[in-house]
Amino acid sequence: MAEDTTETLERDEESYGLDIRVIPALRDVVEAGDLARLTEVLEPLHAADIADLLEQVDSDLRTAVVELGGGLVVDGDVLSELDDSIRDEVIAALPPDILTDAVRDLESDDVVDLVEDMEEPQQAAILSALEDADRVAVQQALSYPDYSAGRLMQREVVIAPEHWTVGAAIDFMRANAENLPEQFYHLILVDPKLKPIGQVTLGRILSAPRETRLIDIVEDGFRTIPVIQPEADVAYAFNQYHLISAPVVDDDGRLVGVITIDDAMIVLDEENEEDILRLAGVGEESLSDRVLDVARGRFLWLFVNLMTAILASVVIAQFEDSIAQIVALAVLMPIVASMGGNAGTQSMAVAVRALATRDLTGSNTRRVIWREMIAGLLNGLGFALIMAVVATLWFGQPMIGVVIAMAMVLTLVAAAVGGIVIPILLERLGIDPALASGPFVTTVTDVVGFFAFLGLGTVILL
Amino acid sequence: MAEDTTETLERDEESYGLDIRVIPALRDVVEAGDLARLTEVLEPLHAADIADLLEQVDSDLRTAVVELGGGLVVDGDVLSELDDSIRDEVIAALPPDILTDAVRDLESDDVVDLVEDMEEPQQAAILSALEDADRVAVQQALSYPDYSAGRLMQREVVIAPEHWTVGAAIDFMRANAENLPEQFYHLILVDPKLKPIGQVTLGRILSAPRETRLIDIVEDGFRTIPVIQPEADVAYAFNQYHLISAPVVDDDGRLVGVITIDDAMIVLDEENEEDILRLAGVGEESLSDRVLDVARGRFLWLFVNLMTAILASVVIAQFEDSIAQIVALAVLMPIVASMGGNAGTQSMAVAVRALATRDLTGSNTRRVIWREMIAGLLNGLGFALIMAVVATLWFGQPMIGVVIAMAMVLTLVAAAVGGIVIPILLERLGIDPALASGPFVTTVTDVVGFFAFLGLGTVILL
Repeated sequence: MAEDTTETLERDEESYGLDIRVIPALRDVVEAGDLARLTEVLEPLHAADIADLLEQVDSDLRTAVVELGGGLVVDGDVLSELDDSIRDEVIAALPPDILTDAVRDLESDDVVDLVEDMEEPQQAAILSALEDADRVAVQQALSYPDYSAGRLMQREVVIAPEHWTVGAAIDFMRANAENLPEQFYHLILVDPKLKPIGQVTLGRILSAPRETRLIDIVEDGFRTIPVIQPEADVAYAFNQYHLISAPVVDDDGRLVGVITIDDAMIVLDEENEEDILRLAGVGEESLSDRVLDVARGRFLWLFVNLMTAILASVVIAQFEDSIAQIVALAVLMPIVASMGGNAGTQSMAVAVRALATRDLTGSNTRRVIWREMIAGLLNGLGFALIMAVVATLWFGQPMIGVVIAMAMVLTLVAAAVGGIVIPILLERLGIDPALASGPFVTTVTDVVGFFAFLGLGTVILL
Repeated sequence: MAEDTTETLERDEESYGLDIRVIPALRDVVEAGDLARLTEVLEPLHAADIADLLEQVDSDLRTAVVELGGGLVVDGDVLSELDDSIRDEVIAALPPDILTDAVRDLESDDVVDLVEDMEEPQQAAILSALEDADRVAVQQALSYPDYSAGRLMQREVVIAPEHWTVGAAIDFMRANAENLPEQFYHLILVDPKLKPIGQVTLGRILSAPRETRLIDIVEDGFRTIPVIQPEADVAYAFNQYHLISAPVVDDDGRLVGVITIDDAMIVLDEENEEDILRLAGVGEESLSDRVLDVARGRFLWLFVNLMTAILASVVIAQFEDSIAQIVALAVLMPIVASMGGNAGTQSMAVAVRALATRDLTGSNTRRVIWREMIAGLLNGLGFALIMAVVATLWFGQPMIGVVIAMAMVLTLVAAAVGGIVIPILLERLGIDPALASGPFVTTVTDVVGFFAFLGLGTVILL
C-alpha cells in the first residue's frame, strides 16, 4: 500500500496543482468513449485537482466527462471542491444513484457546505439521499445562521469524561475505531453536562503513561467557540492564536461540534479573496461564471463610479471659461486627479487590510491618521516639485508650475486623509470598508483634485 | 490546572483579539512603576495579543512597558509575534540575559523567523545565546533560500522505521516524551536512508490495536515537500490538498524537517496581504512603520503612475485646438477615462486573483479573455446609452452624446481586454502580476479613453 502513495512532486514550474497537460488527452479519451483510459488518466489525481480540471475545460467536455465517468470521476470529495456554478451543472449531469453515493461519503460539514447554497428542490433531493441520522445532523447545521461557526463545524467529535486516564482513553478509541472522524487532533474533556472543560493533544496522549489523568495534561490556552460566531471571527482566532482545532458550544456552553484549522484556513482565504475583489469593485465572482452574470455583477459598481465621475465633471464645468482661455489646464488636470486617486487607493488599501487584521484599533487610529497625513504631505511636496518643473518646461509659463504644485500638495494630503478616514468611518458604521470605500475616496480625490487645480488656475492665471 | 485555562470569550463586538480597554490601565500602571499590577494586566493575555498591544501603543509607552516588565512581558512567543520594526525596538530595550532566555524558549523554526531579517551583528548576538545544537540547526536553516520550505519547516520531527508496529511506536513515544515537539500530527515512516515513505495520523495510531503494522495504516495522498520549494507553493499545496503536516526532504529525498498547517496558513495570509497591497501600489508596509519609510515606499509607485498620467496628458495635448473650440470635451473626458480605469481594475483584480489560485491556466485563458471582452462590450453598450442621454441633455448637442457613447464602448472593451491580458503576460514573463499590472492597465485605459473620445470628438464635431 505504501509504495504507490508516495508521490514526490517535482514538475518544474507547477510543482503542485493540476497538470493541464492531461486536458488534450482527456478530449481524445472522451471522444473515443474509452472509460478504462479515462479512469487511468484521472485516477492519480487528487479530488481538488479533478475539480479544477472540470472547472477549466469547456462545458461540453465537462458534461461528456461526467456522463462517461459517472461515479468514477465525481465522488463526494470532488463535488465539495467544485465552484457553485459548475457544481450545479455537474449534479444535473449525474445519474441520481451516483449522486446519492457521492453525498453519503461526506462528513456532515461537507454536506452542509454542499447544500447550503442550493435551491430548495435540489437541496431536498440531496438530503433525502442521506441516512436519517445524517439528515437530521445536516438540517440542524442549516438551522444556524449563514457563515456562522455552526455551519463550519463538523459534528463528529471525540470526547472523554474529565476523570478518565490516558489508558481509558486509548482503550475507548481502540474499541470505537470505526466511529472516529477521519481527522482529529484533540480529545475534548467534558463535564457531565457535556460542557467542554479542556482538550488534550493526541501527541500528549500517545506519549504519557497509561495511568496519567487526562485533566493533568490538558493544553494551555483552551478556547471554545460560540456556535453563532461569524466564521470570519473564527478564522481570525485560529490565525491569531495558532489553534489547530477548537470545540464549538451552544448558548448553554454545551459541546455541539468542533472546527479544525483546515476549514478555518479556507475561510481566511475566502475572506482575503473577498477583500481583494471588493477593493477592485468586483463582488463574488468566479472564472466559471457566465458572461451575463459577470457583466451584471460589475455593472452596479461601475454605475456608482459613473456618478462620482459625473460629479467630478460638474466641478470641471464650473471652470469652462478658464479652460477655454488656457487649454493647458485641461491638458494637466487629469494628472492631479490621477495622482490623488492613486495615493488615496494606497492609503485605503492599507487601512482596509489593517482593519481586517485588527491592527487598526481605537488605540492607534489618531496616530495612524496623523502618519498618513504627513506621508501624504511629504509625497505631495515631492511631486509638486517635479510637476512644477515639468509644467513650466512644457508650457513655458512658471505660474502654471506654481498652480499644479499647490494643487498637488492639497490633493495628495486630501487623498491620504480620505483614504484612511473613510474606511475607518465605514467600519464604525458597520459597513464593509473593502466594499464601500472606493467610490467615496475617488469622489474626494477627484473633487479636491479638479477643484484645487482649476480653482487655483483661475485665481492665479487669469 | 484545568479550571483557569477554560476561557469562553463572549465580549460583544470583538470576541477575539486584543481588548484595547487594557491600554489606559497600562499607562497608569507603568507611570506608577507597579510591576505587580503590570503582570496582573498582561498575564491573562495570549502572546499574540501582547504583541498587538506593544504594536498599538506609542513608542514611549512601549519602551516603558518593556523596561518595567522585562521577561515577564516579553518572552520568545511575544518576540515571534511582533512586527519587524517594533521587534527591533523591543529587543534594543531588553536586557541581554532576558533576550537570551526568550530566544532559548523557541522552536527552531521560530528562531529562524526571528533572526532571518535581522542585521548581521544583532543576528550573531541572538545566535550566540543558543545552545550549540540549536545554533547549528538555525544556521543550517538560514543556508536555505529566503521564503523556501527550508526556512519555514521545523527540524523537530517524529519518525519511525517502516517495519514498526503501533505498540512499538507508542512505547517509543512514551520513553521519549521529553523530546517530542509541542505539536505534531503525524508519525513519519522512514526507510533506512531516512527517506520518508508515508505517514500515519496520531488518531489512527491511538485507535489501532498494538500489533498493527504502521505501514498498513498510512494516510492516503502522502506528499513530500522539497526543501527549496518556495513557501507560496507550500501554502498552495496545504490549501489545495487539505494537508495538516508534510515532511520536507532534501535533494536526495532524505527527511530534513516538517511543515505544519499553522505555518502554511500564516504564509497564505501573508501572500494574500501582499497581493492586496501590491494591487493598490503599496509594498511591504505595516502600521508601525515610520512615516518616512511609508512615504518613501509609496513614492516609487506614485512616480510610475505620474509617468502614465503625463503620457495621457500628452495624448490630450494633441487635441488642444478641439478642446479650445468645444470645452464640453474637457468637461466630459475624465468620465470616459475614469470608467475605463475602473473597468480595467475589475478585470485585473479577477485575473490576478485567478492566477494566484491557479484557476487561470493555459487551458482556459482564451475562453476567459473572450468572456471579459464580451462582458466589457455589454457594459460598454449600457454606459454608452446612459452617457449619450446625459451628455445630450447636459450640452444640448446630440452629436456629443454619439461621441461619448462610441468612446465608452471602445474604452470599456479595451479596459476589459487589457485588464485580463496584461496580468497573464506579466505572469508568463515571470513578473508578479499583482505588482506590475496596475500602471500598464491604467496606461491602456487612459490612452484609449482620451484618444477615442477626443479623436472622435474632433472628427465628428468639428
